[in-house]
Amino acid sequence: MANTVYLTRRERFNAAHKLWVPAWDDKKNYEVFGKCSNPNWHGHNYDLFVTVKGAPDPVTGFCMDLKFLSDLVGDKVISKMDHKNLDMDVDFMKGKMSSAENIAISIWEQLEESVVAQGCRLHSVKLYETENNIVEYFGGE
Amino acid sequence: MANTVYLTRRERFNAAHKLWVPAWDDKKNYEVFGKCSNPNWHGHNYDLFVTVKGAPDPVTGFCMDLKFLSDLVGDKVISKMDHKNLDMDVDFMKGKMSSAENIAISIWEQLEESVVAQGCRLHSVKLYETENNIVEYFGGE
Amino acid sequence: MANTVYLTRRERFNAAHKLWVPAWDDKKNYEVFGKCSNPNWHGHNYDLFVTVKGAPDPVTGFCMDLKFLSDLVGDKVISKMDHKNLDMDVDFMKGKMSSAENIAISIWEQLEESVVAQGCRLHSVKLYETENNIVEYFGGE
Amino acid sequence: MANTVYLTRRERFNAAHKLWVPAWDDKKNYEVFGKCSNPNWHGHNYDLFVTVKGAPDPVTGFCMDLKFLSDLVGDKVISKMDHKNLDMDVDFMKGKMSSAENIAISIWEQLEESVVAQGCRLHSVKLYETENNIVEYFGGE
Amino acid sequence: MANTVYLTRRERFNAAHKLWVPAWDDKKNYEVFGKCSNPNWHGHNYDLFVTVKGAPDPVTGFCMDLKFLSDLVGDKVISKMDHKNLDMDVDFMKGKMSSAENIAISIWEQLEESVVAQGCRLHSVKLYETENNIVEYFGGE
Amino acid sequence: MANTVYLTRRERFNAAHKLWVPAWDDKKNYEVFGKCSNPNWHGHNYDLFVTVKGAPDPVTGFCMDLKFLSDLVGDKVISKMDHKNLDMDVDFMKGKMSSAENIAISIWEQLEESVVAQGCRLHSVKLYETENNIVEYFGGE
Repeated sequence: MANTVYLTRRERFNAAHKLWVPAWDDKKNYEVFGKCSNPNWHGHNYDLFVTVKGAPDPVTGFCMDLKFLSDLVGDKVISKMDHKNLDMDVDFMKGKMSSAENIAISIWEQLEESVVAQGCRLHSVKLYETENNIVEYFGGE
Repeated sequence: MANTVYLTRRERFNAAHKLWVPAWDDKKNYEVFGKCSNPNWHGHNYDLFVTVKGAPDPVTGFCMDLKFLSDLVGDKVISKMDHKNLDMDVDFMKGKMSSAENIAISIWEQLEESVVAQGCRLHSVKLYETENNIVEYFGGE
Repeated sequence: MANTVYLTRRERFNAAHKLWVPAWDDKKNYEVFGKCSNPNWHGHNYDLFVTVKGAPDPVTGFCMDLKFLSDLVGDKVISKMDHKNLDMDVDFMKGKMSSAENIAISIWEQLEESVVAQGCRLHSVKLYETENNIVEYFGGE
Repeated sequence: MANTVYLTRRERFNAAHKLWVPAWDDKKNYEVFGKCSNPNWHGHNYDLFVTVKGAPDPVTGFCMDLKFLSDLVGDKVISKMDHKNLDMDVDFMKGKMSSAENIAISIWEQLEESVVAQGCRLHSVKLYETENNIVEYFGGE
Repeated sequence: MANTVYLTRRERFNAAHKLWVPAWDDKKNYEVFGKCSNPNWHGHNYDLFVTVKGAPDPVTGFCMDLKFLSDLVGDKVISKMDHKNLDMDVDFMKGKMSSAENIAISIWEQLEESVVAQGCRLHSVKLYETENNIVEYFGGE
Repeated sequence: MANTVYLTRRERFNAAHKLWVPAWDDKKNYEVFGKCSNPNWHGHNYDLFVTVKGAPDPVTGFCMDLKFLSDLVGDKVISKMDHKNLDMDVDFMKGKMSSAENIAISIWEQLEESVVAQGCRLHSVKLYETENNIVEYFGGE
């Protein structure tokens, strides 16, 4: 597409989680997940970067209104994840390990339809679990 | 190309702008652009990341001399945008909405020819309007 | 005071301004203020850190509710400065040069009374004009 | 003291917590603590800055060996708080609200004696709960 | 591949180096490399971002265990480069200019085989020489 | 002083150094300084924050012109330390261990007289050796 621009909005949320396979005993969970398996949870300040792509509107100069994008991410993701327990409180994480990989995939699934409904495409969901641990998801094929 | 490396230089500029469609009245401008339509301008510290790509020179190990790239961006972009009003002072923004999308496209157009003249290709122009609002442009087709 | 804790809330605002002494001609303004004297304004993303001090409440563990502090700074400062022209739109900056120093002093004056009314003391107002230029004000004597 | 230098080491930990007064009902807890009262916990990446002060040793040029300081904070604080639940797993937080204020005070108490034993003084404990919410503690009198 | 996720680990190292072509005299080295040719070395805090890609494991939710990736980068790269002289101490840099471009390519070569042995692919090696100078390498063809 | 404002300028430099006491053998140097004693040097990107204090000028609103402060630090410090070897190339570090503590004290000594000559006082010199290791010096008594 001519003049495709990639537009990114950063949002953040704080949440508790743990990495724990119920079918495994404590020892195996600790071997695989280390201190992330702490039974009483731990948590993160997650930094979320959602990137959409499209051509800028000839009048407004916008691919997508960043306020709309911020509200969309706020409604579909942040309001459901911020100050929550990812393993207990978040409907779209039910039955999934709350690895950063799975969180990113799940956030993509929450957002894709609404972004397309705006005439844009969802390009990527990038998630910083910490400043050292980062995942990015560009959708499945 | 064998051993293509992507080389990025960050430069920054501070500028005033507003988002305002002259054909619309105040009410419509406020509805669409919110507080970005403030008639007396507002401004940003923009962070600009310019990425070029090419193979490292076998002798110097450089794709492009970063000092050259910094000077090029300084000459073609920063000297024209820093401490300026994007809507009034910048020749290559004339007649365009100063959305982050349009600024990124315009900066690309300022730089592409000079980068190619150095035997490299321009890969992307990434612009942080704030730490939450980011656009990236990879050129049109 | 026993167990005084210093509590800081970061808020941000984007604004246009220029440095310009009306009694001076263009040449002198440019000599003193350089590119900050651009007649058509320029702007910044300001990072504001407001620090209050007090003893934590024995029940809540709070010196001051950070949501209250955020709302207070939002109401007294951000709502008046964000996406505004500091020299034209902000009542409490009228007649003052919008140097970072004066902005910090003025923000202090906006906040002090309300902080004291909460049983805390205002400790400092720190303002990042850019990541390189920073001022901090601890009140006058 | 002649030539006092302030030396700071940053360490980080991730932890779950909630703000909850057992003597209050759900409604009052939510009124006071908002989403921080989520019963299923939430969490943060905490950034901790510990500052000691002293005169540099004439031979090594060190106030305190930063590796020693890092190990000390690791042993007394990080190993007990990282990937833990601050309200359930941390002995020195027992019976205290896990407000950022109280965490900072508790960390000070964990560290002071060992710093003094090295011939330095503990100057401050600064804790970033998020990039917007920061507390600093300089000790009680 | 269905559900490919890109996983990034940041590691850091501090090192000394200089840019110097032995076949050139001092004057030519200074002309080409500027202050980077200082004969007595200079140095950097390098930030290294290693990105691998793969599908999350259905049980653990991991593409690759980040602790494994961190240990791998630690073993193959950081232990050999941190607090070293890149031009004198690092076997896999021997005979190469220590430009950021060449460092990134060399780090890729150090890591690729071990990443593939884990059933993932190495996607990119991104290196911040400073916050303004950044290279990224995606492998040769 | 009425309305004292603290004004900070950030500057940066890259340099090589090592920690090494000539009177000690290799083993003792390694015991005390660890990998910082690497004989072939290592290096850092140093972030330097210089803070001066004074009352804003009633006309300009400036405590000190930040461009002047930047030029002063550039002339007295950065030009002598950037892309240098701190142990071999820097006259005012001769005969001193290049610990972060000693660097900060030496930078203070370089700057104090010139700041006072401008009618301000030097408040502090803060030096980030890495984002985890920080020293600050407020002058001796």
